Amino acid sequence: MTNYEAHLDQAIARLHEEGRYRTFIDIERKRGQFPHATWRRTDGTERPITVWCGNDYLGMGQHPAVLEAMHEALDATGAGSGGTRNISGTTVYHKRLEAELADLHGKEAALVFTSAYIANDATLSTLPKLFPGLIIYSDSLNHASMIEGIRRNGGAKRIFRHNDLAHLRALLEADDPAAPKLIAFESVYSMDGDFGPIREICDLADEFGALTYLDEVHAVGMYGPRGGGVAERDRLMHRVDIINGTLGKAFGVMGGYIAASDRMCDAIRSYAPGFIFTTSLPPVVAAGAAASVRHLKTDQERRDQHQTQAKILKTRLKMLGLPIIDHGSHIVPLIVGNPLHTKAISDRLLEEHGIYVQPINFPTVPRGTERLRFTPSPVHGPREMDALVRGLDALWSACALNRAELAG
Amino acid sequence: MTNYEAHLDQAIARLHEEGRYRTFIDIERKRGQFPHATWRRTDGTERPITVWCGNDYLGMGQHPAVLEAMHEALDATGAGSGGTRNISGTTVYHKRLEAELADLHGKEAALVFTSAYIANDATLSTLPKLFPGLIIYSDSLNHASMIEGIRRNGGAKRIFRHNDLAHLRALLEADDPAAPKLIAFESVYSMDGDFGPIREICDLADEFGALTYLDEVHAVGMYGPRGGGVAERDRLMHRVDIINGTLGKAFGVMGGYIAASDRMCDAIRSYAPGFIFTTSLPPVVAAGAAASVRHLKTDQERRDQHQTQAKILKTRLKMLGLPIIDHGSHIVPLIVGNPLHTKAISDRLLEEHGIYVQPINFPTVPRGTERLRFTPSPVHGPREMDALVRGLDALWSACALNRAELAG
Ligand SMILES: Cc1ncc(COP(=O)(O)O)c(C=O)c1O
Ligand SMILES: Cc1ncc(COP(=O)(O)O)c(C=O)c1O
Repeated sequence: MTNYEAHLDQAIARLHEEGRYRTFIDIERKRGQFPHATWRRTDGTERPITVWCGNDYLGMGQHPAVLEAMHEALDATGAGSGGTRNISGTTVYHKRLEAELADLHGKEAALVFTSAYIANDATLSTLPKLFPGLIIYSDSLNHASMIEGIRRNGGAKRIFRHNDLAHLRALLEADDPAAPKLIAFESVYSMDGDFGPIREICDLADEFGALTYLDEVHAVGMYGPRGGGVAERDRLMHRVDIINGTLGKAFGVMGGYIAASDRMCDAIRSYAPGFIFTTSLPPVVAAGAAASVRHLKTDQERRDQHQTQAKILKTRLKMLGLPIIDHGSHIVPLIVGNPLHTKAISDRLLEEHGIYVQPINFPTVPRGTERLRFTPSPVHGPREMDALVRGLDALWSACALNRAELAG
Repeated sequence: MTNYEAHLDQAIARLHEEGRYRTFIDIERKRGQFPHATWRRTDGTERPITVWCGNDYLGMGQHPAVLEAMHEALDATGAGSGGTRNISGTTVYHKRLEAELADLHGKEAALVFTSAYIANDATLSTLPKLFPGLIIYSDSLNHASMIEGIRRNGGAKRIFRHNDLAHLRALLEADDPAAPKLIAFESVYSMDGDFGPIREICDLADEFGALTYLDEVHAVGMYGPRGGGVAERDRLMHRVDIINGTLGKAFGVMGGYIAASDRMCDAIRSYAPGFIFTTSLPPVVAAGAAASVRHLKTDQERRDQHQTQAKILKTRLKMLGLPIIDHGSHIVPLIVGNPLHTKAISDRLLEEHGIYVQPINFPTVPRGTERLRFTPSPVHGPREMDALVRGLDALWSACALNRAELAG
């Protein structure tokens, strides 16, 4: 008979050997003091830290409008929704949030899921049921949740090289023109911070009669005059059939969604197990998310500050010759290229400098491109930035790491 | 080229034809007044209703201890967690919740997911990676989230007839004794309200060297002296390898988890995309859930009231000859057996009696067993119960439906 424990031990040992066993750092954010937080060590001691790797990109998780909406919803309705969307779990909070999101993206409708992970997974795995014979063309760097969704139902799929339009075209040309098709990609790839070529992909989609599916998880709230994402900034929202976004990053709360035509949302709503068979978001979460989306439709200043902060950090790190990747987005990846070094630098930043940035290893990024990924925000002040830049400079020298070598 | 809209129209038309197109009823719960709520019609008018189909089985979504913990967490830390569990999204609230859950189930560890749906899906689809060649034996009435998880990775699976131990044994006997095996089942099947034979399945697992995976989603909080579920009630928790539960039903908030050995949780934590690549639960949600779990460890009175309410309702409906299913659990399914009739009765209960119970159709239950599913709770008083019983009696006569025919 099987020795299950031995299998588990082996699986965990593999991670240790490769230097990519993940240790979760236990942090407590203090409202109003973000990015300052408290790190609780396993021995119970505490240390103040600055968070440099959160995805609450704009600090909306601390915004009074969001917190007020959440307190109010708690007082008005209680804790959970008490049911799936179909069975007693649809409330005015869910409806308002979906209306807010449809408006944000200029679409007829939006559908809220418990996360953008499940929105991607559930939608992409349901589309082949709606369009029999569907072929999905998927960017090779698409997020795990899209990959899981595309894989799940065993439908036809083609992987095109990251952002490679010629490869995508060749794959489209090779398939039956009559087959239903969908191109799935992202607007901002979160680990390199580069942009997907939305316009060119929409052109190809038109030419080959394909639908387009765009993950704007790392763009919603942050790009476009109302926070509708890169497609809004580039005036392309109307050309994308399905837009996916999260409520857990720039919007600062939790949950995910798609925005699309009425028909599309109605069909996904009706056929996707990941939407149907799960308790809906608590009203308190929906209320906070709706307040955040609404607020960011007009707070361009926050978006501008965010971009400015990213530019300053990138400029300063480049001046020191540190190998960052710069594609002009808000994400600042610093390549180390080895899981053990990455972990060591992350550990020392935390221990010696009170700077928290999680090492990013395989499978989140390809092996050999292990990195630290910084997410400057409007609430990171000049003092925090100075401390970060000085800390990195010192560690880079102490560890004798290369400067400006691996920068992309 | 494909006419995508025509495909969508067809998919939606199929649902209308079969009478199983779902219309979400928009309800607003009023804190402190549950099960009373407000129904907002699409034309904007409102009507007070009594909710009889929620899964906040014990009314914990309204409990002061839960709401207080949530207000406090909001004030202390803000709205969202700002990251995945690995990247800045682990807080003391998550740790405390996991400790509370491990203790509840007498396991070394617990792992919190964004929902029990994703806990099932992610865990069951990851186990074949940990145990190469794993064969999963799955009860034919397992929940959609388990089915999705088992299907996902294309591992070997065997479906045994619902609760049929002889069939399960035959399937186990037919396979290679050396192959790793897992038996996946539920403790309370939510649509019929019957129990899984936990002891007997654990015996078979011992005999054939299989792991056991038990979904206690419709039992946690409600069964067992501390709310640990049916396995706790029957003193079998130590014999189950992985217990799955939700924080969104009897615990009244949102989220899901598994409880298991340290090793098992560590491996799932490290390998399951559905755990790794998604924003963690907001601290406010984790705080509310932990307060609820903690409270229910001692509130046996609430559990007793809950069972009493279910017994009274079942007795009264039986006395009228209405075809309910009674397996001794807290769930009260009333079989109608036709999707159009079920919807008609549900509509009339809502319109004429202000009683909200959602029709349950395929694919949630097999065709021909369409039903109304009532969930009496400690907060449904005698007045609400009278109104429900009278309303059903009247409608049953008006619609000339059979009495006591389909009862199981
Ligand atoms: C590109 C991308 N899509 C989807 C997700 C999932 O979003 P959520 O955290 O809402 O599940 C993430 C990260 O979490 C992501 O990076
Ligand atoms: C048996 C069973 N397992 C799992 C789930 C999923 O739980 P959650 O609502 O936490 O996703 C449900 C219902 O929602 C269920 O009925």
